[in-house]
Amino acid sequence: MITSRDVARLAGVSQPTVSRALRGDQRVSEATRERVQRAADALNYVPSETGRSLSTRVTKRIGVVVTDLTNPFYPHLIGPLHDELEQHGYRMMLFTERSETAVASQRLLDRSIDGVVLATATIGSRLPDDLQRRELPFVFLNREAGGRPADAAVVDNELGGRLVARELAGLGHRDIAHIGGPAETTTGREREMGFRLGLSEAGIGLPEESVRRGPFDFDTGYRGLTEILAGPTRPTAVFCGNDVIAIGAFNAARAHGVRIPEDLALIGFDDIPMAAWEVFGLSTVHYDLGELAEEAARLLVRRIESDDDPEPRRTLFTPELVLRATHASR
Amino acid sequence: MITSRDVARLAGVSQPTVSRALRGDQRVSEATRERVQRAADALNYVPSETGRSLSTRVTKRIGVVVTDLTNPFYPHLIGPLHDELEQHGYRMMLFTERSETAVASQRLLDRSIDGVVLATATIGSRLPDDLQRRELPFVFLNREAGGRPADAAVVDNELGGRLVARELAGLGHRDIAHIGGPAETTTGREREMGFRLGLSEAGIGLPEESVRRGPFDFDTGYRGLTEILAGPTRPTAVFCGNDVIAIGAFNAARAHGVRIPEDLALIGFDDIPMAAWEVFGLSTVHYDLGELAEEAARLLVRRIESDDDPEPRRTLFTPELVLRATHASR
Repeated sequence: MITSRDVARLAGVSQPTVSRALRGDQRVSEATRERVQRAADALNYVPSETGRSLSTRVTKRIGVVVTDLTNPFYPHLIGPLHDELEQHGYRMMLFTERSETAVASQRLLDRSIDGVVLATATIGSRLPDDLQRRELPFVFLNREAGGRPADAAVVDNELGGRLVARELAGLGHRDIAHIGGPAETTTGREREMGFRLGLSEAGIGLPEESVRRGPFDFDTGYRGLTEILAGPTRPTAVFCGNDVIAIGAFNAARAHGVRIPEDLALIGFDDIPMAAWEVFGLSTVHYDLGELAEEAARLLVRRIESDDDPEPRRTLFTPELVLRATHASR
Repeated sequence: MITSRDVARLAGVSQPTVSRALRGDQRVSEATRERVQRAADALNYVPSETGRSLSTRVTKRIGVVVTDLTNPFYPHLIGPLHDELEQHGYRMMLFTERSETAVASQRLLDRSIDGVVLATATIGSRLPDDLQRRELPFVFLNREAGGRPADAAVVDNELGGRLVARELAGLGHRDIAHIGGPAETTTGREREMGFRLGLSEAGIGLPEESVRRGPFDFDTGYRGLTEILAGPTRPTAVFCGNDVIAIGAFNAARAHGVRIPEDLALIGFDDIPMAAWEVFGLSTVHYDLGELAEEAARLLVRRIESDDDPEPRRTLFTPELVLRATHASR
């Protein structure tokens, strides 16, 4: 049986250096890392991670919880998250459960990870409380839950919604609809809240019959706009809770012969790459998705690696309007 | 220190039943599982997975390697894969490395997983050989690599390419272009091969200047069609190596005022949900994505759990054309 001792002897380094080099610890120089790797390869040595984690109580693994991977928003977060975590020597383990409840205590809390990124939390979720009780570090990415303060990298959703309201009001729209995300998510709730505030500042109401809510997906937008178009008053503008909902609405408009933006102005939120595609040219609320994900990774690593228990930090990203081709004056 | 023995006593079941129930083993009834879970919750008991895996040498974790998660094709595979693995009591660990080389030996081969699903293998990849040498079970999903026979769930790509060629030839097209995936992937290579064979059966050539290749992404289609439109002969039809490439080409056509299908017929491959969106109505090659992913999971579980070493099995899915709105006669 080949051990790290043999690798250390062949590479001419200490045994702890072998362990550090093979798990990608930043304190080992690239040259040393390569020498150790060559020695390990020559001896056909594979470090046992299971053994290692028992001895050090550190797994160097981060769990990322995403309940909605087919929403293109999340894959765009995963890449930057992965790269930033890797820079700090952590490996990413993705949990793509169907719901947060399914993630439940026994799956995440079994000490096979050092921390958790929560990307699709709902406001009433029990998961953050569970994690806090077990003292397993976590960070909110994009969405937050209720309860005690925690590390979070989030967007100023209320400001985003307000910017859209001001823009539409300025363009002369008065009959305005909203197709939003779930009321049990902070992103859904805050964007709608900001939008309502901005509209009311302009003296415009948003009656409940002009509002639809649902999961942040294509169907919510498609179905939502179809229902609104069948209603008694046809709006001249719609603000959607995210780009994926907006793209669903865009396709529903196409299906019903409603021209965008001539008959209907349409604005989304997030500025995912798809928003800029020629067929959509979606006007939307922009912020840096990659930066948001990286900040979440940094906040989590800081909490895991600090010896004292730092105050929770909440990094708020400021969004701005990107006006493309789906808005027009009334 | 609370142990599984305490939970067993409180729940009135045996100790092995506690372990089985808490890891979601199918042999435990739902009622028993709930009783055990309630007992575990009451005692604040969390099973240590690290300890468990040392004692049994089984991690009940499957690594899934996907190098291109922003291609919407892969998120659509992940859901069914996750659910099928969970049915068999396995948890999914997603590796979204930038390249297969980065996944490299030390990351996957450290015995923290029982098997691997390779979803984005390239033909020359060293990873399958590495896995075979270490006797770590794996299965190819969608793409295969060269080398020895291995378990695989794949589509008859050559047939798919041939069906497209026949369709376009039957519609009277003679000047035809191809924007394909990478030549170092079986999906890229086989789809182009079948397409060429089908065209040559109809007496139609495919000169190299009418072919572009690149990653299976939006940019490949966008750039590829832009280049082809700037060339000396303008084709009347383009077959794209997958739907994402086709959607890139669709947007490039829009940018250049080329009407689809009047000026240019466009056909993709995979039939991802986006292909059916109103704005695209993409004619494409269909097969059941969910079934493909589930079959890969089943093949892998079979290999992990069988005591003898079964013959490699290759499940080949038969594709068919789905004709929507992007094809037309010449």
